[in-house]
Amino acid sequence: MSALLESYAAGRWFRAADDGEPLLDAATGEEVARISSRGLDVAAMVRHARDTGGPALRSLTFHERAALLKALAKHLTERTEELYALSVRTGATSRDTMIDVDGGIGTLFSYASKGVRELPNDTVVLDGGLERLGKGGTFVGQHLYTSRPGVAVQINAFNFPVWGMLEKLAPAFLAGLPSIVKPASQTAYLTELAVRLIVESGILPEGTLQLVSGGAGGLLDELTVQDSVAFTGSAHTAGILRRHPNVLDGGVLLGVEADSLNCSILGPDVRPEDPEFDLFVKGVVTEMTVKAGQKCTAIRRILVPSALADQVVEALAARLAKVTVGDPRNPDVRMGALASLGQRDEVRKAVEALRAGSEIVFGDPSGAALLDGDPERGAFMTPLLLRARPGATEPHDVEPFGPVGTVLAYDGLDSAIALAARGRGSLVASVATHDAEVARTVVLGLAPWHGRVLVLDRDDAKESTGHGSPLPVLVHGGPGRAGGGEELGGVRGVLHHMQRTAVQASPDLLTAVTGRWTTGAARAESGVHPFRKSLAELRVGDTIASAPRTVSLADIEHFAEFTGDTFYAHTDAAAAARNPLFGGIVAHGYLVVSLAAGLFVDPAPGPVLANFGVDSLRFLTPVKAGDTIDVTLTVKQITPRSSADYGEVRWDAVVANQDGQPVATYDVLTLVAKTWPLPEREA
Amino acid sequence: MSALLESYAAGRWFRAADDGEPLLDAATGEEVARISSRGLDVAAMVRHARDTGGPALRSLTFHERAALLKALAKHLTERTEELYALSVRTGATSRDTMIDVDGGIGTLFSYASKGVRELPNDTVVLDGGLERLGKGGTFVGQHLYTSRPGVAVQINAFNFPVWGMLEKLAPAFLAGLPSIVKPASQTAYLTELAVRLIVESGILPEGTLQLVSGGAGGLLDELTVQDSVAFTGSAHTAGILRRHPNVLDGGVLLGVEADSLNCSILGPDVRPEDPEFDLFVKGVVTEMTVKAGQKCTAIRRILVPSALADQVVEALAARLAKVTVGDPRNPDVRMGALASLGQRDEVRKAVEALRAGSEIVFGDPSGAALLDGDPERGAFMTPLLLRARPGATEPHDVEPFGPVGTVLAYDGLDSAIALAARGRGSLVASVATHDAEVARTVVLGLAPWHGRVLVLDRDDAKESTGHGSPLPVLVHGGPGRAGGGEELGGVRGVLHHMQRTAVQASPDLLTAVTGRWTTGAARAESGVHPFRKSLAELRVGDTIASAPRTVSLADIEHFAEFTGDTFYAHTDAAAAARNPLFGGIVAHGYLVVSLAAGLFVDPAPGPVLANFGVDSLRFLTPVKAGDTIDVTLTVKQITPRSSADYGEVRWDAVVANQDGQPVATYDVLTLVAKTWPLPEREA
Repeated sequence: MSALLESYAAGRWFRAADDGEPLLDAATGEEVARISSRGLDVAAMVRHARDTGGPALRSLTFHERAALLKALAKHLTERTEELYALSVRTGATSRDTMIDVDGGIGTLFSYASKGVRELPNDTVVLDGGLERLGKGGTFVGQHLYTSRPGVAVQINAFNFPVWGMLEKLAPAFLAGLPSIVKPASQTAYLTELAVRLIVESGILPEGTLQLVSGGAGGLLDELTVQDSVAFTGSAHTAGILRRHPNVLDGGVLLGVEADSLNCSILGPDVRPEDPEFDLFVKGVVTEMTVKAGQKCTAIRRILVPSALADQVVEALAARLAKVTVGDPRNPDVRMGALASLGQRDEVRKAVEALRAGSEIVFGDPSGAALLDGDPERGAFMTPLLLRARPGATEPHDVEPFGPVGTVLAYDGLDSAIALAARGRGSLVASVATHDAEVARTVVLGLAPWHGRVLVLDRDDAKESTGHGSPLPVLVHGGPGRAGGGEELGGVRGVLHHMQRTAVQASPDLLTAVTGRWTTGAARAESGVHPFRKSLAELRVGDTIASAPRTVSLADIEHFAEFTGDTFYAHTDAAAAARNPLFGGIVAHGYLVVSLAAGLFVDPAPGPVLANFGVDSLRFLTPVKAGDTIDVTLTVKQITPRSSADYGEVRWDAVVANQDGQPVATYDVLTLVAKTWPLPEREA
Repeated sequence: MSALLESYAAGRWFRAADDGEPLLDAATGEEVARISSRGLDVAAMVRHARDTGGPALRSLTFHERAALLKALAKHLTERTEELYALSVRTGATSRDTMIDVDGGIGTLFSYASKGVRELPNDTVVLDGGLERLGKGGTFVGQHLYTSRPGVAVQINAFNFPVWGMLEKLAPAFLAGLPSIVKPASQTAYLTELAVRLIVESGILPEGTLQLVSGGAGGLLDELTVQDSVAFTGSAHTAGILRRHPNVLDGGVLLGVEADSLNCSILGPDVRPEDPEFDLFVKGVVTEMTVKAGQKCTAIRRILVPSALADQVVEALAARLAKVTVGDPRNPDVRMGALASLGQRDEVRKAVEALRAGSEIVFGDPSGAALLDGDPERGAFMTPLLLRARPGATEPHDVEPFGPVGTVLAYDGLDSAIALAARGRGSLVASVATHDAEVARTVVLGLAPWHGRVLVLDRDDAKESTGHGSPLPVLVHGGPGRAGGGEELGGVRGVLHHMQRTAVQASPDLLTAVTGRWTTGAARAESGVHPFRKSLAELRVGDTIASAPRTVSLADIEHFAEFTGDTFYAHTDAAAAARNPLFGGIVAHGYLVVSLAAGLFVDPAPGPVLANFGVDSLRFLTPVKAGDTIDVTLTVKQITPRSSADYGEVRWDAVVANQDGQPVATYDVLTLVAKTWPLPEREA
């Protein structure tokens, strides 16, 4: 008897007392492992996540959490061989395995990178700008995101046992939520191995990742307001989860990503001799056969202009005929097995349903011409192409979760968009076109029905990641039938796990809450120029209020001549007087900010190393010859970099004229040494 | 018999055939109107919204939709007297009416303003930056929001018959969704009047606003994937809506904003003699008595430090004693009637439940000392203050939807936060404190449980809009018991009505889809400098590639001297050599962008009127003496202003050195005349 999979619960590996149920190799039918969760204390798991994992995680900043994800990604990169070796037992070819294993690790790397570049080195994320709630500026509002003190439960599908876990773990982890993972039993042995590698590494704080191998009965009963469930799988199971009392009335957040009837559209502009025709055919065949079509993003509906339908069918059939099917251990095999014989039965049933309105134009649902493998014990199936008769409804309702696609003919772009919409919401659609107008019409027509739309043409084909691949930086999920959820999308996926709150306060107390200086809050002017302070000494609110400087006509004329910016508003009094916004000669905006830098800078070497940028510069009042300006520069935000001797300091800059009117406002971005002088570097 | 309220359905006013049910004046018990929707064809309403209202609305840009909201707000401002006169019949005092009527109109104005300032003059909203999906830059991703081709149904509570409709209408309208409004029957006569005023104005396109007066049976049965329901009311009704098959399995989006057990916390730093003590007491009494406590944001739980509990109770009681109760037609009345005798019965029942663990310390639930009004027929009730015994659980579960609050004592901030969290998710919390550390701890502790948190202190008190007031620019809604929905929040509330989609394409086709120039897309260099083109002639992608200019050491030295920016990296070769980022003298960033302007500008008077700002300026590579730079300026986005002779043009600017490396990237913002020369102005 094979080994019993274990759960990782409350800090230890748990082994059920019974023998469990067998899990079979998809290609050979041999037993890979057994699975049971009998006796598992799921309530203790939830408590452990809440009391141990969550607090540990939330004591770290986003940058610290990102660093752990990066370390984990590196660790797993060194252990991929073990995962690859086991993955073949799920029926996966090496290409399928790459998507699962390398794709999962890539998601960790992507979140590690986004976490550092797009989130603050803090535990709170500000959302949008400051809202002034009163004319006097004493009452202001700011939206922010905080971490929920809850648990993120993930319930995953069988098709991507590694990626499915990691793509949910990474954003939840960054958001400060501990995860409890419940993989589909069929391929849970691969998830269990991945969790073992992670736990052994000791990289993640204890309690931030737990695993249920086997049934998760009672887990949802333990969840409450601050907890969430992210489910990937069938619409049927999603419906069961939506009916749980804790979801209906208990405030548990449920996100669903369900299989959908994704379509790919051949643009009406494409002729058979165009590169887009081939790209379309290749794309469809790839999506039908990768992972033996067991992908929630696979192309199920193939929409082509009526006039080209015969040619498309012919080209697809020719290409599908080259797809070798069999045991994925054979390197010449292009398409492996379905996950189980049961899955194959389901697909065959769906094909029968489709045949009510469509005919098979390539392949044989009963037979399987194998390059290699046991046709009885392996869950093999050759690709099947159907062609729908006009008015067929089944392709919009029936989903064969296998290597099956249906060609539907359309007449005109409106008809293509209407057919796509009949899927009632999908994860992804694609369109092959090289026509700008077709691209715009189709994409904007499809967008309300889809979470992702891919435009395939000769220009992006080489770098395109294809119709079926969710990317960590783009949202994954779709409306309606696709479940209505949204995952990934870089920081978007992190924020979905956090609570957005509007905070109203005086500027001083808002500054205290957010750690970011707020317009109207107190400024700290000490005798020391803030450019003389290292990151260790600098404080939010530290300010330099400059001396004044009068801008003369000579300054403006000289600047025009020196820079070459002889725009008439700076050089031609008569023409400038006719300008409806200025009514006379004005100083260049670039002159104003250049002089302002001259006013606020402290020139000697010191902890401020460089000005690396400027944000949101607005010129509010023209500066005319004879006007006198000054500038006030205040530390707005301090972001130490974990990996460098310096950090980023964002300064609020306000240039005002002699009447106190603001003439320019902007943020100055600088790099400031953590200590000064900088430590000596090794040669 | 009073008049039967009508529904506005499919372009005409519908009157039911029966006599309907009577609706009574809250203070006098007289019949105000009758209500029935018998025979109303809700399916035709949904079709009308889908086929007429939606397409009309979505053919307008956000700016055009915003202009209609502004016109509507102005129209209603001129008709407030009619609304005020009817509002008194709901039991509302003139202060209550202001919140409802003026608050509703203010929400329209706010959305009209946000729509122009924060949304593009287009029908698509881009979300976030460009994602480069391949190293070569030929495959890129961009998130965008599109309008759903659906219907926004709103199901409102009885307490704010005007605001409740308008706060949902404004964001849905901006998002391109037609609305069907179903007000609570009790006060539907006021909503009906408001809809009559709107329909009579002819400002909104037909089909974008419809009204159900009476029951809306069958309405949800008509909804599908692209439709949404926004509900405000009780958790009980929310539970019924969540169980509708079209919500559970049909993809209809449901947003809920439910009454919650909001709390206000007196900070542990506050002494009785501090201004925050009085502000706290005033705030609590206001929230308990405005609208006779019938507000989903009202303060139900009053959390105070144990040591001050007696003093707080005393101060609250003293202030509550001054609240005059009675017929709101009497101008000396501070608090009017509950909405109905039935509502009063509900509140009295809740008070009985609360008394299990709390004692009444002010007021009498059975009696009502009235300044004016009929105590039998009017739904009057005097304010009631309770004080919870230690460990009482009812205040965290039972919600009296009337002028009732319970004082709970806490010991230490953690205890206060834990008590607040026992409400299991609320719309809003407030804290009175003048201590920065208390503010930070409490706000960040409360935030995961709340949609809004108000910090009240001496600095913001004068301008504060108070605990109970949702503002159009801030999100309204909360997790858990509060329903889990989110409304308002400026543009956030608009985007909730739209679908977010990730688009993947080549830069050229992405530019075609979004209407915004994408890095990597073709640039159009014609013989004409783009500064010579008016908005009518200018096209996205129009480009000027400048001549080169060498930056000499003399230029750098001169710029330092002229501007006063003598930072050592520009002036001191030895010190600059020790800078870890530069390793030698570098040109000022401001010099680089000033010279770049000199290179791209076309100086003669023309359609480009002004440079009003710069966004996202980043200095990527240092420019050293002897380097040669050039600049490429490309039209990225064109936003005509509806209300001016000019529009905004955003230019993509890339400054590169002699090796083709980018040294600075930024967006230049200009105002460009729609036609050139500008039309003559009237003197």
